Amino acid sequence: MDRIKELANQLKQETIELRRDFHRYPEAAWTEFRTAAIVAERLQELGYEVLCGAQVIDEASMMGVPSAKELAEHAQRAVEQGAKLQWVEKMKGGKTGVVGIMKFKQPGPVVALRFDMDANDAGESQEGTHRPYSEGFGSVNKGVMHACGHDGHTAIGLTIAKILIELKDELKGTVKLIFQPAEEGVRGAKAMVATGVVDDADYLFGMHIGFNTKVLGQVACSTEGFLATTKLDAIFSGVTAHAGAYPETGKNALLAASAANLNLHAISRHSKGVSRINVGYMQAGTGRNVVPANAVIKLETRGNITEINDFMVQEATRIINAAANMYDVNVEILEMGGAPSCLPDLEMGEKVKAVAEQTGLFQEILPVSNLGASEDCTYFMERVQSRGGRAVYMMVGSGLAAGHHNHCFDFDEEALYNAVVLISGLAKDILK
Amino acid sequence: MDRIKELANQLKQETIELRRDFHRYPEAAWTEFRTAAIVAERLQELGYEVLCGAQVIDEASMMGVPSAKELAEHAQRAVEQGAKLQWVEKMKGGKTGVVGIMKFKQPGPVVALRFDMDANDAGESQEGTHRPYSEGFGSVNKGVMHACGHDGHTAIGLTIAKILIELKDELKGTVKLIFQPAEEGVRGAKAMVATGVVDDADYLFGMHIGFNTKVLGQVACSTEGFLATTKLDAIFSGVTAHAGAYPETGKNALLAASAANLNLHAISRHSKGVSRINVGYMQAGTGRNVVPANAVIKLETRGNITEINDFMVQEATRIINAAANMYDVNVEILEMGGAPSCLPDLEMGEKVKAVAEQTGLFQEILPVSNLGASEDCTYFMERVQSRGGRAVYMMVGSGLAAGHHNHCFDFDEEALYNAVVLISGLAKDILK
Amino acid sequence: MDRIKELANQLKQETIELRRDFHRYPEAAWTEFRTAAIVAERLQELGYEVLCGAQVIDEASMMGVPSAKELAEHAQRAVEQGAKLQWVEKMKGGKTGVVGIMKFKQPGPVVALRFDMDANDAGESQEGTHRPYSEGFGSVNKGVMHACGHDGHTAIGLTIAKILIELKDELKGTVKLIFQPAEEGVRGAKAMVATGVVDDADYLFGMHIGFNTKVLGQVACSTEGFLATTKLDAIFSGVTAHAGAYPETGKNALLAASAANLNLHAISRHSKGVSRINVGYMQAGTGRNVVPANAVIKLETRGNITEINDFMVQEATRIINAAANMYDVNVEILEMGGAPSCLPDLEMGEKVKAVAEQTGLFQEILPVSNLGASEDCTYFMERVQSRGGRAVYMMVGSGLAAGHHNHCFDFDEEALYNAVVLISGLAKDILK
Amino acid sequence: MDRIKELANQLKQETIELRRDFHRYPEAAWTEFRTAAIVAERLQELGYEVLCGAQVIDEASMMGVPSAKELAEHAQRAVEQGAKLQWVEKMKGGKTGVVGIMKFKQPGPVVALRFDMDANDAGESQEGTHRPYSEGFGSVNKGVMHACGHDGHTAIGLTIAKILIELKDELKGTVKLIFQPAEEGVRGAKAMVATGVVDDADYLFGMHIGFNTKVLGQVACSTEGFLATTKLDAIFSGVTAHAGAYPETGKNALLAASAANLNLHAISRHSKGVSRINVGYMQAGTGRNVVPANAVIKLETRGNITEINDFMVQEATRIINAAANMYDVNVEILEMGGAPSCLPDLEMGEKVKAVAEQTGLFQEILPVSNLGASEDCTYFMERVQSRGGRAVYMMVGSGLAAGHHNHCFDFDEEALYNAVVLISGLAKDILK
Repeated sequence: MDRIKELANQLKQETIELRRDFHRYPEAAWTEFRTAAIVAERLQELGYEVLCGAQVIDEASMMGVPSAKELAEHAQRAVEQGAKLQWVEKMKGGKTGVVGIMKFKQPGPVVALRFDMDANDAGESQEGTHRPYSEGFGSVNKGVMHACGHDGHTAIGLTIAKILIELKDELKGTVKLIFQPAEEGVRGAKAMVATGVVDDADYLFGMHIGFNTKVLGQVACSTEGFLATTKLDAIFSGVTAHAGAYPETGKNALLAASAANLNLHAISRHSKGVSRINVGYMQAGTGRNVVPANAVIKLETRGNITEINDFMVQEATRIINAAANMYDVNVEILEMGGAPSCLPDLEMGEKVKAVAEQTGLFQEILPVSNLGASEDCTYFMERVQSRGGRAVYMMVGSGLAAGHHNHCFDFDEEALYNAVVLISGLAKDILK
Repeated sequence: MDRIKELANQLKQETIELRRDFHRYPEAAWTEFRTAAIVAERLQELGYEVLCGAQVIDEASMMGVPSAKELAEHAQRAVEQGAKLQWVEKMKGGKTGVVGIMKFKQPGPVVALRFDMDANDAGESQEGTHRPYSEGFGSVNKGVMHACGHDGHTAIGLTIAKILIELKDELKGTVKLIFQPAEEGVRGAKAMVATGVVDDADYLFGMHIGFNTKVLGQVACSTEGFLATTKLDAIFSGVTAHAGAYPETGKNALLAASAANLNLHAISRHSKGVSRINVGYMQAGTGRNVVPANAVIKLETRGNITEINDFMVQEATRIINAAANMYDVNVEILEMGGAPSCLPDLEMGEKVKAVAEQTGLFQEILPVSNLGASEDCTYFMERVQSRGGRAVYMMVGSGLAAGHHNHCFDFDEEALYNAVVLISGLAKDILK
Repeated sequence: MDRIKELANQLKQETIELRRDFHRYPEAAWTEFRTAAIVAERLQELGYEVLCGAQVIDEASMMGVPSAKELAEHAQRAVEQGAKLQWVEKMKGGKTGVVGIMKFKQPGPVVALRFDMDANDAGESQEGTHRPYSEGFGSVNKGVMHACGHDGHTAIGLTIAKILIELKDELKGTVKLIFQPAEEGVRGAKAMVATGVVDDADYLFGMHIGFNTKVLGQVACSTEGFLATTKLDAIFSGVTAHAGAYPETGKNALLAASAANLNLHAISRHSKGVSRINVGYMQAGTGRNVVPANAVIKLETRGNITEINDFMVQEATRIINAAANMYDVNVEILEMGGAPSCLPDLEMGEKVKAVAEQTGLFQEILPVSNLGASEDCTYFMERVQSRGGRAVYMMVGSGLAAGHHNHCFDFDEEALYNAVVLISGLAKDILK
Repeated sequence: MDRIKELANQLKQETIELRRDFHRYPEAAWTEFRTAAIVAERLQELGYEVLCGAQVIDEASMMGVPSAKELAEHAQRAVEQGAKLQWVEKMKGGKTGVVGIMKFKQPGPVVALRFDMDANDAGESQEGTHRPYSEGFGSVNKGVMHACGHDGHTAIGLTIAKILIELKDELKGTVKLIFQPAEEGVRGAKAMVATGVVDDADYLFGMHIGFNTKVLGQVACSTEGFLATTKLDAIFSGVTAHAGAYPETGKNALLAASAANLNLHAISRHSKGVSRINVGYMQAGTGRNVVPANAVIKLETRGNITEINDFMVQEATRIINAAANMYDVNVEILEMGGAPSCLPDLEMGEKVKAVAEQTGLFQEILPVSNLGASEDCTYFMERVQSRGGRAVYMMVGSGLAAGHHNHCFDFDEEALYNAVVLISGLAKDILK
């Protein structure tokens, strides 16, 4: 542990600089070409086997992907902002996931560490009180911002990668460093899991800075309250008609969507726990004198257990299709994101606690904390658990300048060091 | 014509007595066992070939039929009230239509005359001012009443049957006297037409006492404004559940019906003319703490042309099915009645006018009158016209004690004589 | 305690006979004229001060009361079945509550014991396996049955009344025996509380046989999971119109109710806990060709805390009114029943536990059990607690022949003895 | 008439050039600053008393007005494109109506001629086959195009203004030339009528090129089938909330709008004639995980008589307000346009016919033609008729390159001459 703390200390400044570089060049879901290229390059330099693009992202399982045009523009921007073209080309089509694998000499367990890389669709504050702006590492990509700390997560992952190489001779088994795109909107994990990247993992660790651990020195050793969720778009297509002259020849997509909205919200409450439904957006029609032939609604369902969310999705799907049929219009339902629920592995939490105590860095060690939100790390966790492995999700405390997703979000970079030490320690503990 | 008037005059009292007998023993749709048995018996006595029961009623085309139990009870009542058992047995299952056919010696055209026999679901007035009551021929069948004049129509038909036999030697061709059940709710004509009873008709005449000709001495030679209509019941079946304990296990028929109601009324207006939709009745659920698994709605559509009514029915059917699907419940849609629209045959109206003038009985002869309602004689008319024949529907004026379907309805029995003379004259004019 | 057990033992057969008498003459909510008259008579004989009728039932707070005609018929039946007319007359209008008060010589606390008396709207089984039927104490009142054990509760209350008189000289303070009508549909407690009958109570005890304690020898010392609930009827009144001729002149109550149904079920889920909404019944309209001017819906809301139920009621009320306004019809919303939630008093549960142990009758003593339903004893409990008193609701185990509200419901009459001993013991413990 | 034809002939080229100038600089509703400034300047030069701005536009009655910012930008553009600043300043706020008044020496009747000036929101074709483009007078104002012929109407009005001055000495009474903005969306007439500009008119003439007279040499002497219409926007405002965390704290504008949509379309059909309702546009919400607090719908009602449209508007207004109340959100309903129905004055049509025959220019003279659409000239007509005057709306035939409002619309400029002669002739006929 002392060795780890020493190494982490040496790499502290580098970690902060990495984080600030990622912060300056934020990339939203499925467009993390520059971030992923840097990650891949570094891992390769360190001697990791590097998988990326279609090797680690299953195209059919990608959810909520931007248009080809947007992807191409962002790939171009990444190159302009310093990404190596060879990596960007491998990630074509938004396949911006990276996995670094290191097999140590001795046989042993497989430990997977998962970090998410994407930024948010948000304009960053340009107020003097906002440190990234005042200290010159504010976003240069308009409308995109690291407002959730994934810049820090990526930096933590790369520093851990370095430390584990330093400890190489003491370790057995295999470490897999998983850098996931598109956690925002819970869109990316499913596509990585579908390629089998964690199918051989005996252990998986995920983590988040801040969140319910809002003070430096806090740590939550496991997490409960992952809400299962599904994000759907429904696109209704009918037939226009002059509303005065031939109304009966129209097929009214606006009314189909309106009927869907009301009946979606009338889905029954569930006796087994918490459910949610929200149609948060609708756009329909063109002019007031035309029977509207187009409508789009964007919705999400949630459940505190996957079973409830599955119930909501099944109901919602049937209702949307029936609403379309009611008005004789077509509808396409797109899955734009989603994540299962996941129960906390309290036993693994005990192990985290033991390591956290060893570090001497944490004043408040919580066995478990409630997320009360969705996070698609659960896809990885569920897969690992379903194959007999162990998985745990931690939260590492940090003071926050503003809440997650706020345009003034910022965190205490000392938390980077704490996270590096904790997770490196955990990995070493298992792989020793 | 003089001969006809003389015969009609001789039969005047008998016609009135027949009408009063039918009035005293009214029978609602599909239960006209006694009325039809008397009609059949009389026609047979006069020498007509008599068809009835399954010969003239197609079971698959019967709409809005009472339960087997009710039919059996009414058949039993008919026998108790004087119907001959042999006829009633032939009419089992509510097949209470009768057709009398007379082929005259010489070949010639086929003339069909259509009369409706059924009474209304209504309690008859027992006020002293209501003549049927005060003169002792008020309904003895509780909750049933001849409030639309079909008692008169049946009496008219039987008297014409007698007159045509008297004129037998002067006539060529064939006369078909069609006595239809279940005109109320427009339920009966379709089933007679389906057996082909008018497929050989060159001419068809239908008629109504009163309606828009409210004064004795008026006659409308043809009728427009038949609204096409369809009567539907939708019966939704879901699954009950305790609404507090396990709401998600229920399949909610009440909500399915409610969704159907709103969206049915939102069917588009039609640019080609008048449309109507009305859900007039709904019953759903049992108790407030149970997810309701049963719901029934009763509705009707209308259109001033058949095309519009067909559009309404097609839309309504799709909407009801979609509403059921929306709540994952089953639905059965039953056609409980219906009638097409029909354009007036103004040319035939001219012929009616000529005969009406000959009778010397009518002070006001209207070429055409607007019905603004539905009447399933249009099924006969449409079939005859579609096969190249001519069809016309007349209204014979009479003072009315109250509007049609009112519990105080009564008409001036002098109109019976006028109608007998007019229609006998028309038949003779064509068959001479 | 030994003395109590001895007395209870002597009264065992009488208790059972009382229960069977009540079972044989069941009376539904607000019609417990005979039951209440017997209770009042007995209490008076024992020397209790007896309050009943308007003294203990606030007319304005009565919910879900039958029509005056029904009340009169049931009062008449009660007299015919043995109720003393003088009591029945005092309870006119369904004010069938009774309170017996005994002030002991020495000053001391006020202890209220609450028992419910009403039967269910259900036909009783007449199968040979149903003991009440086979042993000759099955319901003689058609469509009414004691299917929830309130017959037993009333018998228990009367036996305790007798025991406390026997123990009179050892007791201080006051005991109030509260016999409540109309617990089914949670309709009666509110009206008793409104008269202040428990305003002076320092302690209140309520109890139920069976429920979640389905084995003789079990007892739950306190109860959690009382769902707050409100039962509403909404009666919509519009204007009829001929649906074909003048549809625009109608005011459509069926559509108003349908709109209410959908939007009621779309009331938002609540982040603080469990909510429920159910429209369980709807009746609207007359015939399919008339714009429907009448509609009734019956609904209930629930919440695991009163705050949530209040939210649901507030939303539901606004939605129903808005739906009526949407179709320009009138609506009357009637509160047909309701009960608040109530947290368990675990400290009082400890006292119950101590007494239960003393009795030596209970093999399984649960500190608390979950009801997961509604029970309007919470009105009494809430009032007592809000004035600084203590309240607890117990469940006394019994084998059950079938579930509560089932037409084959029956319980083990040994449970009567257990309950009498426990509650007498509790009262004595406090009043000694 | 010969004199008129001679003058019109002399001015033919000038008329065409005027039309082409207006075509090149099209201005949409309420932004006709340049067009109106040119009209005002010309009328002044000819000696007419010129009223404009607030003199002829009642601010409170303006419907569907662009934002102040847009108005300012368009006023600026008008000046840049040649409008005199002094006129533009008078028309501030979009008050772009102009009235030219000429009182002839002798007393006599007041004749008002109404022309509309605004262009459409449409991009003009830049295909070689589109004459305005190929001949160099295509729109230079992006997204705006004269696709309805109002450029021609304005040119016709100015040429008539000149001819009437030439004929001055032969005329009595008064002529009022009314140049109306914002006919598209039926937004402008109401505001001019409200200032009383036609309150003294004995006669009013309106006209349209093309439409149902699609051949040069046709003329319709009067017009029927003006559909009364109202254009409404409803803007719902609620309260956002996190849809997962605190859904019950939101006030859902999307659901309010959805409920409004369904129930608006369920407004009853009307027995007196044709009705229409169309919600043609909806936009609501921001993201899928936020309870949507904003929603806008755009709708229109129609009726073949004003009474029916008024019924539709009254129903729609109540429904929208009730839907907002149902979800506890606010709603603002804005009247964005509208026009009454108007019966044709067939007697005045006779006079038009007589003049049309005198001109010798028309091969096909229709007494009346059906519009089957809405046109706010009816506001002027209704006002004049209601005060005892006579009003008629004509259609002057022209070949059309494409239908009205099509991006390839163009007409045969020979029609300008025909219209000038006809209307000048009519005016002279009355004022002589």
